Amino acid sequence: MATTAASGTAPEDGFDVPALLQELTLEEKAGLLDGSDFWHTQPVERLGIPAVMVTDGPHGLRKQPAQGDHLGLGDSVPATCFPPAAGIASSWDVDLMTRVGAALGRECRAERVSVLLGPGVNMKRTPLCGRNFEYYSEDPVLAGELGAAFVRGVQSQGVGTSLKHFAVNNQETGRMSVSAEVDERTLREIYLPAFERVVTGARPWTVMCSYNRVNGVYASEDPWLLTDVLRGDWGYDGLVVSDWGAVNRRADAVGAGLDLEMPSSGGSGTRAVLDALAAGELSEEDVDRAVGRVLRLVDRGRAALEPGHAFDADGHHALAREAAAASVVLLKNEGGVLPLDPASGGAVAVIGEFARTPRYQGAGSSQVVPTRLDDALTCLREALGGARDVTFAAGYAVDSEAADPALVAEAVEHARAAEVAVVFLGLPPSYESEGYDRPHMDLPAQQVELLAAVAEANPNTVVVLSNGSVVTLEPWQSRARAVVEGWLLGQAGGSAIADVLLGRVNPSGKLAETVPVRYRDNPTIGAFPGEHGTVRYGEGLLVGYRWYDARGLDVAYPFGHGLSYTTFAYSDPRATVLDDGAEPRVEIAFTVANTGSRAGKETAQVYVADPQASVHRPEQELKAFARVDLQPGESTRVVLVLDARAFAYWHTPLRRWAVEGGLFELRVGASSRDIRLSATVELSGEDVRAPLTPASEVGTWLDHPTAGPRLREALGVGPMAGMLDDPQHGRMFRSIPLDRFSRFPGSPVTERQLEDWAAEADAARS
Amino acid sequence: MATTAASGTAPEDGFDVPALLQELTLEEKAGLLDGSDFWHTQPVERLGIPAVMVTDGPHGLRKQPAQGDHLGLGDSVPATCFPPAAGIASSWDVDLMTRVGAALGRECRAERVSVLLGPGVNMKRTPLCGRNFEYYSEDPVLAGELGAAFVRGVQSQGVGTSLKHFAVNNQETGRMSVSAEVDERTLREIYLPAFERVVTGARPWTVMCSYNRVNGVYASEDPWLLTDVLRGDWGYDGLVVSDWGAVNRRADAVGAGLDLEMPSSGGSGTRAVLDALAAGELSEEDVDRAVGRVLRLVDRGRAALEPGHAFDADGHHALAREAAAASVVLLKNEGGVLPLDPASGGAVAVIGEFARTPRYQGAGSSQVVPTRLDDALTCLREALGGARDVTFAAGYAVDSEAADPALVAEAVEHARAAEVAVVFLGLPPSYESEGYDRPHMDLPAQQVELLAAVAEANPNTVVVLSNGSVVTLEPWQSRARAVVEGWLLGQAGGSAIADVLLGRVNPSGKLAETVPVRYRDNPTIGAFPGEHGTVRYGEGLLVGYRWYDARGLDVAYPFGHGLSYTTFAYSDPRATVLDDGAEPRVEIAFTVANTGSRAGKETAQVYVADPQASVHRPEQELKAFARVDLQPGESTRVVLVLDARAFAYWHTPLRRWAVEGGLFELRVGASSRDIRLSATVELSGEDVRAPLTPASEVGTWLDHPTAGPRLREALGVGPMAGMLDDPQHGRMFRSIPLDRFSRFPGSPVTERQLEDWAAEADAARS
Repeated sequence: MATTAASGTAPEDGFDVPALLQELTLEEKAGLLDGSDFWHTQPVERLGIPAVMVTDGPHGLRKQPAQGDHLGLGDSVPATCFPPAAGIASSWDVDLMTRVGAALGRECRAERVSVLLGPGVNMKRTPLCGRNFEYYSEDPVLAGELGAAFVRGVQSQGVGTSLKHFAVNNQETGRMSVSAEVDERTLREIYLPAFERVVTGARPWTVMCSYNRVNGVYASEDPWLLTDVLRGDWGYDGLVVSDWGAVNRRADAVGAGLDLEMPSSGGSGTRAVLDALAAGELSEEDVDRAVGRVLRLVDRGRAALEPGHAFDADGHHALAREAAAASVVLLKNEGGVLPLDPASGGAVAVIGEFARTPRYQGAGSSQVVPTRLDDALTCLREALGGARDVTFAAGYAVDSEAADPALVAEAVEHARAAEVAVVFLGLPPSYESEGYDRPHMDLPAQQVELLAAVAEANPNTVVVLSNGSVVTLEPWQSRARAVVEGWLLGQAGGSAIADVLLGRVNPSGKLAETVPVRYRDNPTIGAFPGEHGTVRYGEGLLVGYRWYDARGLDVAYPFGHGLSYTTFAYSDPRATVLDDGAEPRVEIAFTVANTGSRAGKETAQVYVADPQASVHRPEQELKAFARVDLQPGESTRVVLVLDARAFAYWHTPLRRWAVEGGLFELRVGASSRDIRLSATVELSGEDVRAPLTPASEVGTWLDHPTAGPRLREALGVGPMAGMLDDPQHGRMFRSIPLDRFSRFPGSPVTERQLEDWAAEADAARS
Repeated sequence: MATTAASGTAPEDGFDVPALLQELTLEEKAGLLDGSDFWHTQPVERLGIPAVMVTDGPHGLRKQPAQGDHLGLGDSVPATCFPPAAGIASSWDVDLMTRVGAALGRECRAERVSVLLGPGVNMKRTPLCGRNFEYYSEDPVLAGELGAAFVRGVQSQGVGTSLKHFAVNNQETGRMSVSAEVDERTLREIYLPAFERVVTGARPWTVMCSYNRVNGVYASEDPWLLTDVLRGDWGYDGLVVSDWGAVNRRADAVGAGLDLEMPSSGGSGTRAVLDALAAGELSEEDVDRAVGRVLRLVDRGRAALEPGHAFDADGHHALAREAAAASVVLLKNEGGVLPLDPASGGAVAVIGEFARTPRYQGAGSSQVVPTRLDDALTCLREALGGARDVTFAAGYAVDSEAADPALVAEAVEHARAAEVAVVFLGLPPSYESEGYDRPHMDLPAQQVELLAAVAEANPNTVVVLSNGSVVTLEPWQSRARAVVEGWLLGQAGGSAIADVLLGRVNPSGKLAETVPVRYRDNPTIGAFPGEHGTVRYGEGLLVGYRWYDARGLDVAYPFGHGLSYTTFAYSDPRATVLDDGAEPRVEIAFTVANTGSRAGKETAQVYVADPQASVHRPEQELKAFARVDLQPGESTRVVLVLDARAFAYWHTPLRRWAVEGGLFELRVGASSRDIRLSATVELSGEDVRAPLTPASEVGTWLDHPTAGPRLREALGVGPMAGMLDDPQHGRMFRSIPLDRFSRFPGSPVTERQLEDWAAEADAARS
């Protein structure tokens, strides 16, 4: 019997998924779990189930024409290229991120794309990860907030997202097979919470599993990751799709919770599912569960199939420019050399090929064909409109490692003749790509040589950087009076840089990742990129600023740092415990004032320190932030509420979050190392001590209110009398598990006694 | 039928173990696997099997009287207290260590002790480990050489040793239960090789398992550790004894290769073995294997039961003094303030309680009751014989944290009146003990305050340290013109210090552990002491100088550092490959000359660097050292031969050592950071690349001599043509496992083809 879509359609015009599952053949079901080509799901025409299109992103649409290449990396239709994640993360602006997301959603609708493959919220574990430009931060709260804003924005347009790469995909070297060896607490506190925040806060339509293994198990077939954590702990009800080529054993993947394989496996995935069904390795329920999720995705995605949508390319370019300007981080600005005064009249020597040929995005699956492209040189010239003479010297050839003496000489000549030299430096495109990691974090040596020569000729030198991940600054930054971290800023980066250099936009970006002094200071030395198929996450929780803080290492610029053309004062901190129960809530309030002479935006950061925990905790951790926009002389009161998670740690034996009672310090800063205010609260929390057992140490027994006196009494009568209070041996004795001691010759305590006392103590506790 | 010892005795008067195993009852066998009290094995009188005594050490005999306490920690018979391991390790003198070992053996014979429980060769992973004073070094070659020398010395007297604590017992916190989580390469290259070197080089009678767990398994019941590695890989044929109280599940321990439980379990261990036999969890062969080892130990140990041996207490004290003087490390000596010239006539202000009340050993099971005790104050006075006035001020009370103004004032007065102030500082006894770790690595604040006051009064200030593990020097060492690291030096430390201060002995000690600038620089921050029962060895191979070198961290004093009152020049390095085969051997020769005006000893160190390996390798590793004794103007040629192990790394997938071909640099230094000479050799080594499989990355395939061209041809004809040589995508493509790519839509390569090509490539290889 032929069926129309109507029969499988629920009253509100959505699919009637249970009915469709009844009508689909096993072969059709297995087929629905596989893509139909590089970018489409499988249609079932007889049931009115269309194919929907998913497309790379995330900072713009990379929709390939039908006859693309077969790595899925070639040309694509023009789309607005917004700043990649490494740039926009520096804005710390969730509203801006949401608006950019909505714009991306509109472009998807115009191109009839149902799902945009992003955002990427992996942690920046090493500065060398080749894909760091696609990720937000070294901090899970910041990455999670921005990722959630991205999803809310895109999905507000009826287009889905794909939260990626789930999980622990923090390097490109061996990314399709390497096993990240990470303890559970580190997973829960560092590598998973950005995903958790997006899932619980923004409900992405899809989650994309990563290529790599986690503690030996491929993410694509890890039931703990894809089912227990994602769906169980976090309540996720959407679809899980493989990263392109991430499926290893297809049947295991279905069993673990991976619903859709992409791209098309050419039928081998479908056959594997059918074989596993026949062999009883998968049940029809397993398959129905996955197919149901595919159907619900297609159902949601059908809206995007409507033709006739368009987007405002000029408006999106303007938004890209706003976003790019908000992403710029003013690292240093000696003597207020910036902004450049249009009225000063002196010549501006623009130096560096990147001023003319912008580097504005990274390579790989995220690479967008922009609708247009601003370059800083042209934009500066236009903005100054002849008020100041703008000269240009290329200074270097982007893809060459060797200095070109003629180009350097020309640049020096320009610099000498100008009032100020603005030198554009950065990483060549070949330095940063999906698929491989950087071998070092330095700029090309010839660029550093160029800067030295230029700064020698004109001490009034400003550096503008183009790079998708941090570069070493220390060897050369002292030569520049100002350093502008321009990241990769998308297609409007050139105009945005001009806006910032000329003060049309007051810079407000803050670093979303630490800039270390030297590569060797970073936490992964000796444990990156791993060897023989595994990489040990030896630093545990101490990623990014958590590491530099724990070790008291100097950094070039700390996490959260960024200057403005105005100044801000912080005052009047007040912390209030709103709820001291099982799920504590604490309010932190403080005042921020613009104490300079320009309007400006400031991102105030709240870090929590837990100096008294019974487990190792990072010195401080970002838990909240607020962005304020203030006129000169204006001030505002910021009020933020921290929930239980802001104080909790993952308690591995209890397998859940726990707030351990005690004092917590709330630190309010303009950066992680520019703490302006502090307030302390005390929370009752919970008793996280392990229950008393015969294997507890003597000291733990002695400190117990009921068991302690009993033990002391028993020990006081035997040959051990006095040993306990012996200054030399007492402390050593306290460290022995009591059940071990009870086997020692002449012990006055028996194992039987211990069990009774422990049971008694446990009863008293509960 | 009653049997006499004779019936179980082999022709050469040794036990006939097979015969005894026939005659012993099951109950007797199970009993023999348990101690009879704290310090003795179980006798079986009817078969002439005596009890033998084992006794704590290792730097002296701690033989308790029969009615000791029941922690085994109380009083013991007087014995020579030689310098603990942390001291004598700084001598780098294997001959001295052997002579000390022989003296210890003689004392055992005099006390009818059959086995001395030592040496301890655990690595110093953290400066805070409370038992570091009992361990030699942060480097396994140095610890292994000294441990082997100790064993050879003791066993030359017909007395056994117990190599401990096997393995990965590198902290006291939670030591009886904590699981050290360490990857296998780190185990093989850092935590096990000192044990391996002692086992293979000196064949200790017994090995003592540690309390802790290793990767989740108690060392006392780990068949991998106690059988596969110890007996399988290293060929050990002796007995394994539990650390006192280390047995967890007795039957599992027997099965894993733990032969003897100590101390006596009061019968519960015996019952557990019998129960396991009855339940079939242990076979009689399992038990016989363990009992056979006990019998062979008792057999060897019987010689020590002979009465009538004595030792020369004066001679041993003299040896203890020689060893102590050789253990002293002269850290700094500005302007040659040391040695003190007896002829100068000016007063010497000796300051600090430790000069009068020496701290000479640590607390816990190694604590010896000395035969006598030298203090530095008396020894200095005696040595100077009135040539210089020696005053004394206590300066501080050892066990107080707060400064005593009266004591400080007195010390300042003495210092002001003297030509030189010699300030004795150090750690109070309560700071360093078996059973707990230090909370920090600082001296008591009051001692630092005292030094500041004294140095203010007399800039000619010398510091002498007494400490069992490194202390922070940076905050105060600039106040002292000379710093003498006196460790814990045993009972003759006082005279030895006087010998060094007065130049009667030219100091020659070299640091066996790095002195970091600050505690926070050490590799274990955030991963020590662990939590919830586990400690992550996150730094992997990068322990000690390997860490500080890899991260380019400044240190207070590097591994291998130590000054002399003379100077040495290094010259004429020559490296020769003696064998470039499967087991390469390389000779390194160089000349050391005494270029100063005093006789002196120098320890030249050879580090190997492997800059080209396909795995991460430490920047350099100690592989050999030589101690030379030179008159002024004298020089000598040092010739050392490095074997395969000096160049190999543990290849985890191959599960064996492998020498990867390439260049190796041999660095000859006076310390790890005072490299004087360098030579390079090239070794053919072996091809350690993994065989080509379908899962190998495209780049690996393309680089293969036979498979590469085939793949390139196949890729050249499909829609992928050109992608490979695309500057932007080619490198990313190279990182994809070929079997994953072969599933991509339109792939010109099939999985079947891949298997054929891989088999072909593999065949060509072998």
